[in-house]
Amino acid sequence: MIYNSVDCVIFGFKDEKLKVLLIKRNNEPQKGLMALPGDFLDSEVSIYDSAQNTLKELTSLENIYLEQIRAFGEIDRYPGKRVITISYYALINIEDYSPQAGYTAEKLEWCDINALPKLAFDHDEIINIAHKRLKRRVRTEPIGFNLLPEEFSLTNLQQVYEAILQMELNKRNFRTKINQMKLLIDTGKKQENVAHKPAKLYRFDENIYEKLKEEGFYFNL
Amino acid sequence: MIYNSVDCVIFGFKDEKLKVLLIKRNNEPQKGLMALPGDFLDSEVSIYDSAQNTLKELTSLENIYLEQIRAFGEIDRYPGKRVITISYYALINIEDYSPQAGYTAEKLEWCDINALPKLAFDHDEIINIAHKRLKRRVRTEPIGFNLLPEEFSLTNLQQVYEAILQMELNKRNFRTKINQMKLLIDTGKKQENVAHKPAKLYRFDENIYEKLKEEGFYFNL
Repeated sequence: MIYNSVDCVIFGFKDEKLKVLLIKRNNEPQKGLMALPGDFLDSEVSIYDSAQNTLKELTSLENIYLEQIRAFGEIDRYPGKRVITISYYALINIEDYSPQAGYTAEKLEWCDINALPKLAFDHDEIINIAHKRLKRRVRTEPIGFNLLPEEFSLTNLQQVYEAILQMELNKRNFRTKINQMKLLIDTGKKQENVAHKPAKLYRFDENIYEKLKEEGFYFNL
Repeated sequence: MIYNSVDCVIFGFKDEKLKVLLIKRNNEPQKGLMALPGDFLDSEVSIYDSAQNTLKELTSLENIYLEQIRAFGEIDRYPGKRVITISYYALINIEDYSPQAGYTAEKLEWCDINALPKLAFDHDEIINIAHKRLKRRVRTEPIGFNLLPEEFSLTNLQQVYEAILQMELNKRNFRTKINQMKLLIDTGKKQENVAHKPAKLYRFDENIYEKLKEEGFYFNL
């Protein structure tokens, strides 16, 4: 007998860090461990809808575009049962949402991708594969629309790329390459209530963003 | 009750066309239709091993590196049962293999990707998604090692890219860009037994190929 489940890797960006939304499991097996929001698949609905429903039940997040990563199916990945899980990921702007723990989730936490707690099942591997995909995507698609507020500074944008790629980028080089994409619109505004010299605020040109996303490019960071 | 299956999209290149290996189904449902080599998942082995075993049973192909595409799980994709299939793809050089139909496969055929017959289940969608992934990959990774014989002409290589991308490429532009990658080694040999002027034969520099595959690039064809 093979069981199927869905698991969701929700990435966010906060305090200059790439974060992933984890729940604390309130049910056996592996009760008390942190885990991805996930559950057994509902046989009456598509995998995608099942992932959406699971995410809503466990975290209250809804209407988030999920992209499938892949199925994980090592025979011993779940204790005592053969469970194949189908994983999805999404990028969201943390400030736009207030997830609430529900159903079998005891609590929720946005965890730093570089300092994950011990995780249930093979969820560390699923997060690792999702993060690898994100690292590849960042070089061939514009990324940041979902992770950043509508108006942001160039430093904010660079921090997003640095957090995803887990490396420092040269400021001048980064700005030159971003400018070449003609992706940003100067809002004419500046940061407010900051201790340092206020930076200019930009937003994405949605048309260019969608065009680049479709056509692809290579962002040689 | 949810069932799981595996399906394999095996791409090859022949007569200047991108081909996919299909079997004729000798079992219900959809007996007589062409389909991807696939079968129900063996609950005792990993998904990957199950895909390898299925491919071997139905086509005799073995030891082919398969990459997972994703799970397909619309509720009505299989008649009368809920079957979630996990799909894999591979690129092979047709001349190196002699697949033989076995088990529930009545016969085998290498079908032109641009002229597919009516297919069982949602296999047209699975092939479409696999082909889309290949089109993206061709721009960010070197492709051709698996599809071409060890020694090939620049025209052969261009034909592979044209077949995958389903578009004509400018010869001069293509050659300039391939040269920039420093991926090819001149074997010093020329084609034999050809009606036209024999072309120079090249092979891939395996070290550069692996390096480019790992680092990525953007091949702006």
